[in-house]
Amino acid sequence: MEQVNINQDRLWNTIMELGTIGKTENNGVTRLSLSEEDLQARKYIIDLMKEAGLEVRVDEVGNIIGKLVGMDDELPVVLTGSHIDTVVDGGMFDGALGVLGGIEALRTIKESGVTLNHSIEIVSFTDEEGARFGSGFIGSKGMTGELEEKYFSLTDKNGVSYEKAFENANLDFTNFSLAKRTKESIKAYVELHIEQGRVLEMEDLPVGIVTEVQGPAWMDVHIKGQADHAGATPIDLRKDASLAAAEIMLLVEEIAVKWQGVATVGQMEFKPGNANIIPESVHFSVDFRHTNKQKRDYMEHDILNALQEITKKRNVDFSTSIQMKVDPMKCSSNIVREIEQSCRETKLPVFKMKCGAGHDAQILGKITDFGMIFIRSKDGLSHNPQEWSSKEDCAKGTQVLCHTLVRLAK
Amino acid sequence: MEQVNINQDRLWNTIMELGTIGKTENNGVTRLSLSEEDLQARKYIIDLMKEAGLEVRVDEVGNIIGKLVGMDDELPVVLTGSHIDTVVDGGMFDGALGVLGGIEALRTIKESGVTLNHSIEIVSFTDEEGARFGSGFIGSKGMTGELEEKYFSLTDKNGVSYEKAFENANLDFTNFSLAKRTKESIKAYVELHIEQGRVLEMEDLPVGIVTEVQGPAWMDVHIKGQADHAGATPIDLRKDASLAAAEIMLLVEEIAVKWQGVATVGQMEFKPGNANIIPESVHFSVDFRHTNKQKRDYMEHDILNALQEITKKRNVDFSTSIQMKVDPMKCSSNIVREIEQSCRETKLPVFKMKCGAGHDAQILGKITDFGMIFIRSKDGLSHNPQEWSSKEDCAKGTQVLCHTLVRLAK
Repeated sequence: MEQVNINQDRLWNTIMELGTIGKTENNGVTRLSLSEEDLQARKYIIDLMKEAGLEVRVDEVGNIIGKLVGMDDELPVVLTGSHIDTVVDGGMFDGALGVLGGIEALRTIKESGVTLNHSIEIVSFTDEEGARFGSGFIGSKGMTGELEEKYFSLTDKNGVSYEKAFENANLDFTNFSLAKRTKESIKAYVELHIEQGRVLEMEDLPVGIVTEVQGPAWMDVHIKGQADHAGATPIDLRKDASLAAAEIMLLVEEIAVKWQGVATVGQMEFKPGNANIIPESVHFSVDFRHTNKQKRDYMEHDILNALQEITKKRNVDFSTSIQMKVDPMKCSSNIVREIEQSCRETKLPVFKMKCGAGHDAQILGKITDFGMIFIRSKDGLSHNPQEWSSKEDCAKGTQVLCHTLVRLAK
Repeated sequence: MEQVNINQDRLWNTIMELGTIGKTENNGVTRLSLSEEDLQARKYIIDLMKEAGLEVRVDEVGNIIGKLVGMDDELPVVLTGSHIDTVVDGGMFDGALGVLGGIEALRTIKESGVTLNHSIEIVSFTDEEGARFGSGFIGSKGMTGELEEKYFSLTDKNGVSYEKAFENANLDFTNFSLAKRTKESIKAYVELHIEQGRVLEMEDLPVGIVTEVQGPAWMDVHIKGQADHAGATPIDLRKDASLAAAEIMLLVEEIAVKWQGVATVGQMEFKPGNANIIPESVHFSVDFRHTNKQKRDYMEHDILNALQEITKKRNVDFSTSIQMKVDPMKCSSNIVREIEQSCRETKLPVFKMKCGAGHDAQILGKITDFGMIFIRSKDGLSHNPQEWSSKEDCAKGTQVLCHTLVRLAK
């Protein structure tokens, strides 16, 4: 395929412009879903899609959809997309790149006059982050039919319900089930996103092709020992919950290395939490992920074994519960191949990698073939005002997306 | 000396009454220094001292002092005392017994008509525990002249400063230096306290005579790594502050065993503290104690070495500060003899032991001869709602204190 060149400056300008909406004093971006700032950004995206010559509509869960109509609009559509909502003091690239890159790609294709059989749609999904109402992936779940009415009674920290937020945005969720697409109506979903990790930076590469997506699981652990005086209780008479926790944390790390997954203890609370009292109880989280479901099960099994062994040795009790468990997924090998081919066409090295974070792509992946294109994140930072990707890397990723969409829609 | 009998029921009633102030849902007691509950308890103590016929005053650091005036008030005074503030969900006896036993002893002496040359004072010291502002022994340090102005800018976890807490209690710390006593003005200090350990229980004895006291030290440790996405950051690219902390906790335990001291990590805070973010920083306390000052220095040296080694290995930074350091001490052999004699007079076996916890006695010991009387703690529990000592043991300890005070004040 001949190279179809996206406009690097035009893309960068839209990233910079969108980044001014919801800009914070820390130079971060706060655009909580359906907030004033998000509504302003939604208007910006609609205008930009129109300017790009796309057919624009907003579906029943608020997803903004820009369509480039192909020769046969009856054929399954090729989708790309991401989101424009952010966490509090997030960055300018997480989500925004996928939406703006998608618009730039479709605009380029339209301007190039390339003939496509399939239509292509760029989707700006409603509320991916879940940072306002505590539950994300609303737009993508609406599209796959996973959304339920109960979501709309969720409230934000000011007590505003989802229902009310929709109303304030002149949207109506009542017919949310109509946003659902059938498997047959979609050919593929491809998402462009910043990596949010340091792998590409360490490899000194601008673009990566995601081949599999980790499944996150969260375990909640309580360890119960005995509170005693820190001075008057000899070491051999203690039931210190925190030392059991420390041993388990180190074993959790070992288990992640053993199975080549990742695992993190990110939350920890000591009770009673006084310098001169031996901790009676410790409560902590274990986030563990793997691209292979069975290996993640082995990780869980090993973590539970470690808990049993260590708590027995230290004469303390424990209990656990699983708070969340999302299945890992493999990207469609066909789409991975198309992205590979697009990398070659645009003179970029082919580098395959895992995806560690959660994206709308995992939701869409339940009903269609999916793939993801990652670009390098400076210092791996994301959900952070320091989040950054270079103009060149944004353009390279968008160039690969553009070619991939053309290949899929031909 | 003829036996002067304290009133066992009267003593027990005051212990039970004070125990209702700040009672928690776990049947523990929370009376953080200068909190509402502590202020209510302070009023109870003042009223009780007055009822006992003592001259009552509150000194410039908030110590409540009840005085039984001797024949020659110019002679150095004999002091007894302890504290009524508690840790979070502590017990009814730690500190309280020494204050209430002291008041009962002085009331008994006054009622008995025994003639004393020296005056005796019972002191309820301000903030022994340090559980609210992170630094204890405020009242006893005020009395020995160790207190500095900087203490009053310490804040509790709600940001309330010591200065403000004093103000809320209608106290004024401005003239704190006037609380200082001279060596010449004090003859001796004797403190009655629960053991907070299991030695007396194992020996099946009600009362022990302390001969040496462990020196507690508190180190504050900050470890600084890097916050990264828990899913997108491979194990080998992480700078996880919490895993360094876990390794150090286990080494701190080893160091305590090696030197036959004790050491405890009782407080721990993760930042940012999200299940799916690798901890950027961890802040924790290390409480380490020994009866031998040099061995405690070796412990500190080993802890610092462990910090250096582990943080280097894990590529994170650390900083430490010593929040508190009290020297281990030997009790005055003269006072130990007087307590021994009092045990014999009250038909109790003489049993000598070490003290593991920190007490106001160690502070007073820097300017005067001091001694301590311990009574048996059920299961060695303290700083815990299950803290318990029997009515009979409380009375026996108070009886020994009463005789010791008479012998010293004669």
